[in-house]
Amino acid sequence: MSKKILVLAGDGIGPEIVAEAVKVLNALKAEGAIDVTLEEALVGGAAYDAFGDPLPEETLAAAKASDAVLLGAVGGPKWEPLHISKRPEKGLLGLRAGLGLFANLRPAVLYPQLAAASTLKPEIVSGLDIMIVRELTGDIYFGQPRGVETLPSGERRGINTMVYTESEVERICRVAFDIAMKRGKKVCSVDKANVLECTEMWREVATKTAADYPELELSHMYVDNAAMQLVRAPKQFDVMVTGNIFGDILSDCAAMLTGSIGMLPSASLNEHGQGMYEPIHGSAPDIAGRGVANPLATILSVAMMLRYSLGAPEAADRIDAAVSKVLDQGLRTADIMSEGMRQVGTAEMGNAVVAAL
Amino acid sequence: MSKKILVLAGDGIGPEIVAEAVKVLNALKAEGAIDVTLEEALVGGAAYDAFGDPLPEETLAAAKASDAVLLGAVGGPKWEPLHISKRPEKGLLGLRAGLGLFANLRPAVLYPQLAAASTLKPEIVSGLDIMIVRELTGDIYFGQPRGVETLPSGERRGINTMVYTESEVERICRVAFDIAMKRGKKVCSVDKANVLECTEMWREVATKTAADYPELELSHMYVDNAAMQLVRAPKQFDVMVTGNIFGDILSDCAAMLTGSIGMLPSASLNEHGQGMYEPIHGSAPDIAGRGVANPLATILSVAMMLRYSLGAPEAADRIDAAVSKVLDQGLRTADIMSEGMRQVGTAEMGNAVVAAL
Ligand SMILES: CC(C)[C@H](C(=O)O)[C@@H](O)C(=O)O
Ligand SMILES: CC(C)[C@H](C(=O)O)[C@@H](O)C(=O)O
Repeated sequence: MSKKILVLAGDGIGPEIVAEAVKVLNALKAEGAIDVTLEEALVGGAAYDAFGDPLPEETLAAAKASDAVLLGAVGGPKWEPLHISKRPEKGLLGLRAGLGLFANLRPAVLYPQLAAASTLKPEIVSGLDIMIVRELTGDIYFGQPRGVETLPSGERRGINTMVYTESEVERICRVAFDIAMKRGKKVCSVDKANVLECTEMWREVATKTAADYPELELSHMYVDNAAMQLVRAPKQFDVMVTGNIFGDILSDCAAMLTGSIGMLPSASLNEHGQGMYEPIHGSAPDIAGRGVANPLATILSVAMMLRYSLGAPEAADRIDAAVSKVLDQGLRTADIMSEGMRQVGTAEMGNAVVAAL
Repeated sequence: MSKKILVLAGDGIGPEIVAEAVKVLNALKAEGAIDVTLEEALVGGAAYDAFGDPLPEETLAAAKASDAVLLGAVGGPKWEPLHISKRPEKGLLGLRAGLGLFANLRPAVLYPQLAAASTLKPEIVSGLDIMIVRELTGDIYFGQPRGVETLPSGERRGINTMVYTESEVERICRVAFDIAMKRGKKVCSVDKANVLECTEMWREVATKTAADYPELELSHMYVDNAAMQLVRAPKQFDVMVTGNIFGDILSDCAAMLTGSIGMLPSASLNEHGQGMYEPIHGSAPDIAGRGVANPLATILSVAMMLRYSLGAPEAADRIDAAVSKVLDQGLRTADIMSEGMRQVGTAEMGNAVVAAL
C-alpha cells in the first residue's frame, strides 16, 4: 500500500532544499525501492501570506491524513512584527501539537569528512555521535497559564508555565531508552532537579522507568552542567533525554559542536510512528532563492523518515551512504566548503546524491 | 569605616579555597590597603548538618548586616537525598532572595596563559571576554505556583512558573547596559520571544530601556541560537543579558569555552551595591579535603567584591594583576596543569598570590 507523504516547503530556503529531498524520494520511487505518494501544502510565513494563518486547517488535516510530513523550514524577518499567535513558528508548534509529535530525535553526528568545520579541537569531537531525545509537546512551550497580564499597579507581568505529567515523562523516557538499547545503552537524563520541582519529578519518573531496562545505564545531570559537559567532553554522551525547553537549547548547542548544522536532520514522532522530518537548521532568509543552501540535512531527514515512519530501513541506509559518498567525492555546498574541495549549489548537490544512490 | 565581610565557606572544597581568599584579604588589610572586618557563618550542607537548615536565620541576618558576602560553594552527594527544601542549594537561593541579589555578573574570560586548556580552537577563543549578566531573583526559580500535585486520575503533575514583571526586566537591563557602556557598548539580550510571551515582554522592555542609552548597540537573540553562537563564534559577544534559567545554562556554557572554570569568579548584587561573591565552579566533593583545588576563582571573586561592593578598585586591580603574575610564573593547580608548568596545591597557590600582591 502506498504511503502518503505531505511535503511542506515552508519559508526562506525551505522550497529549495525540499526540492532536492523530493528528487531523492522520487528516484527511490522510480526504481520501486519505496511506494510513496507526495502531496504539498503551505505552512509558516508562506501560509500566513496566502491565508492569514501560519497553519491553515487544510494543512493540518492533510498532515493528519499522511504517514509522514517532510518540512523545510519556517520563519523570517518579514513575519517577526506579527503577533506571536500568527508567526510562522506557530505553524510548526501547531503541527507538533496537532499530530501529537511528542518525541523529537536530534542526532548530533560529526561527519569525518567535515571534522575540520568544528570550532572544537579534533580530539574532542572526532567520532561524535549523540542522539538527543527532546520532549516536544509539553513543558513551558504549551503550559497554561501563559501570557502577559496588567497588575493593579499598571505594571505588566509575563507568565509561562512549565508543566509535565508523569505519563508524559515516562513515554519520552521509553523512547530514549528504546533508542539507547540499539546504541550504546547509555542515557543521560537532563533536568534541574535541584531547583525545579517539575524536573525533580522528571528525575524520579526517569529512574522508575529505567527499572524496565536492566541493561541500560541511566545517569542524571543538571541542565547547566550538561551545557558545560557538551563543550568540555561531548563524547561522554550516547543518548540524552530532556524536556522541551532544555532540549531546544542543548540540541542546538550539541549540533553546533559538529560545525556543520547544514548536515543535521531531525524526526518528530507520535505514538503511532507518524512523524514530521526536518533539518535542524532554520530558513536562512539571507541566502534564500540563491541556490546555494545545503540540502543534505533535508535529504538525511528523508532517510530518518524512511527508517522511523515508512518501514524502509534499507532505502534509508542507501541515502545515508549516498550522502557519505558525495562528501567523499569532495562535493561541498558553501556552508561546509573547505580548501581543495569542489563547491556546488543546492541542485547540483541534490543531483549528486541521486546519482550516488 | 571598616567594611564587614561575611565569609561562608560552605561545602566540599569551599573551606579550602575560601581560606586562600581570606589570606589575600588579610594581606591587603595588614598593609592598610583596605579596612575590613571578617566574620564567619555556616550555609549549605554544613549548616544543614549543624542546624538542620541550609540557611539558618543567624546566617541570613549576618549576611544582611554585612557589606559583602564571600561564598565558597555548596552542595554534594551527601545531601542529594534530602527534600528540595532542605538541600544545600536552598541556602544559596535563600541568600539570593533574602538579600535581593537580582544581578548576577559572570565574566567568561580566557587567560592567555591558559589558552591551551580550552576545548575550542585557539582562533575561536583567544582574547575571549564576555560578561554575562543574569537576572537572579525572578523567573522559574522563584515563580508561583510551583510543586507537584496529584490529579484526580491519581497521576502526578509537576509545575514551575516563569514570571517576570516589567520593572524586574528593566532593572537588570540597566545593570547590563551600564556595564556595557564601560566596555564594548554592545549588549545581546537573550530570550525565547518566538514562543514564550513572558520573554516577548522581556524583549519589549529591553528595547524600550535601551532608548536611554543612545550609544549602546542592543541586539536580541533566541536562547537556542545563543547556545549555538557561543560555540560557533563566542567573540561576537560583549555583554549578554538574560533571565535566571537561561542565564544559568548559558553562563556555564560560556564559562566552559575558556576551558578553565577554576579561574572564573562571579558577583551577585542588589540595588544597594551589597553583594555576594563566589567562584562559578561547584563544591567538587571528589577532591575536597585534599588541598589540590584551585583557589584562583575565589581569589578573583574577592577582586570583584572590592570593585563592586567595597569601593576599592585599586586593591581589586592588584589582585587581578597578582593572579596574572602567578600564572606567568608557571604555577598551576591540577585542574589547569599543562606541560612545562609547575603543579602546586591550594595553599601554595594562595601564598603565591599573596606574595605577588
Ligand atoms: C522555531 C522554534 C519554535 C523551534 C522551537 O523552539 O522548538 C525551533 O527552535 C526548534 O528547535 O525546532
Ligand atoms: C546550585 C544552583 C542552585 C545554582 C543555580 O542554578 O543558580 C548554580 O547552578 C548557579 O548557577 O549558581
